[in-house]
Amino acid sequence: MTIILDGRETTEKVMEEVAAEVGALKAKGITPGLALVLTGDDKYSARYVNLKKKRAEGVGIYAELHHLEQTTDEELVAFIHRLNDDPKIHGIMVQLPLAEGLSELKAVDAIAPEKDVDGLSPNTLGKVLMGEETYPPAGVEAIMELFRRYNIDPNRKHWVIVGSSNFLSKPLAASVMNLSSNVTQVDEGCPHIAEQIKDADVISTEMQKKHFVKADMVKEGVIVIDNGNTYEGKKVYGDVDPEVYEKASAYTPVPGGTGPMLIAMLLKATVKAASN
Amino acid sequence: MTIILDGRETTEKVMEEVAAEVGALKAKGITPGLALVLTGDDKYSARYVNLKKKRAEGVGIYAELHHLEQTTDEELVAFIHRLNDDPKIHGIMVQLPLAEGLSELKAVDAIAPEKDVDGLSPNTLGKVLMGEETYPPAGVEAIMELFRRYNIDPNRKHWVIVGSSNFLSKPLAASVMNLSSNVTQVDEGCPHIAEQIKDADVISTEMQKKHFVKADMVKEGVIVIDNGNTYEGKKVYGDVDPEVYEKASAYTPVPGGTGPMLIAMLLKATVKAASN
Repeated sequence: MTIILDGRETTEKVMEEVAAEVGALKAKGITPGLALVLTGDDKYSARYVNLKKKRAEGVGIYAELHHLEQTTDEELVAFIHRLNDDPKIHGIMVQLPLAEGLSELKAVDAIAPEKDVDGLSPNTLGKVLMGEETYPPAGVEAIMELFRRYNIDPNRKHWVIVGSSNFLSKPLAASVMNLSSNVTQVDEGCPHIAEQIKDADVISTEMQKKHFVKADMVKEGVIVIDNGNTYEGKKVYGDVDPEVYEKASAYTPVPGGTGPMLIAMLLKATVKAASN
Repeated sequence: MTIILDGRETTEKVMEEVAAEVGALKAKGITPGLALVLTGDDKYSARYVNLKKKRAEGVGIYAELHHLEQTTDEELVAFIHRLNDDPKIHGIMVQLPLAEGLSELKAVDAIAPEKDVDGLSPNTLGKVLMGEETYPPAGVEAIMELFRRYNIDPNRKHWVIVGSSNFLSKPLAASVMNLSSNVTQVDEGCPHIAEQIKDADVISTEMQKKHFVKADMVKEGVIVIDNGNTYEGKKVYGDVDPEVYEKASAYTPVPGGTGPMLIAMLLKATVKAASN
């Protein structure tokens, strides 16, 4: 039987739990606070950050949205430092990509580790690599949360991770290094990519190539984590061809897989930061 | 022709270059300063740190050795913070493992990123994962320096890294993720370890298992990086059986491979920190 790793249903459950935890914290006089920082004028980013704010407020989190339409590295870093010092803020999320010309490294490195609830800073990524307690990137947590909810053991497996982003594929590989699992990280342009995929017990893709992975490229019983989102008009396609699902033991659909989980993971981390 | 990646000879060359750079910095009125911090009463660690100090002084670096035989997390962190603020110190190295009962994470997390010349802190490891400019762990730099000196391209290869330490195997895997190479990280207890090794274009081992890797386990032409050191009396053995060398295109001998490079990499990073 193939398990569908249903991100929408799981998100609903997580959000209910988060709302209950917010309620419990408020009863103790603590209101979890999240600061969202947006730069530039990208409409998609603006919509997404507004959705994060709405969802945060929906579970009772206090949320601030700061839109720095025109800013400099120095201003942005100073702004983040003020949020680090603000006692009503427990989590800080800087929407990436930043407006053109701004240094992402300087911005994310300015976030205090204890408030880095979206897992963006080098300090957090280092702790993920070390296997230390931290708030891993939301994309990594989304995958691990799905494994937990569907009782899939991430250990004793050969993971193959296709992709190289700092917010998903690289920290996911770093995280898996701390399990009793093999992990292979590959990307386009790497040699033997197809052979690697064929060996995988778990495959995570972040390619943005519509239906790149076909049934004959994977092993029977593979667990598929598809982080691809290729838009054609209003329709969205994953990196994995649906014909693969028949060979899979579990898979995340696109849409409705890891994507919907991201905001829930951010809010869950914010509540954890508030309770610490 | 098999290339011997000679760590002793390479170390001599690096040390000459480091000494020349120190001379050039001193001519500009800057003396590179290195603080070495030792805890507890382990005799091997004490000897090794003293050797680091002697080598640093040998190339003209100002070196301080601080032996905190009895200390607490709070004292150690406060001590490191004072070194962070000390303008004559450009590099800080905390000898690991710490004395029992001390938190390594708290100690290494206290080192200012711009003085973390041995690549120990989560901030540094996160930057290694992100592919950002930093001072990677000396063990990682030792390998990359050997590749550079012997004109071996680390790209377009399938790396297999056997080991899980925070100062070598995991950051090495993190570093290779930023190349155009596949990287597989495995450790004992992981499934299919032998099959993984057989696939490797480059294998790095950190197992401490005398001559574990045999000739029939590797591919013809493999590049072998052996970080194993198993002592039997005064003799030391690597993880790779010397019979493998005949199949290899390049290899680090044990002794005389990566081991001797570590101090040179620390001093090279210290000089770089001083010139920044």
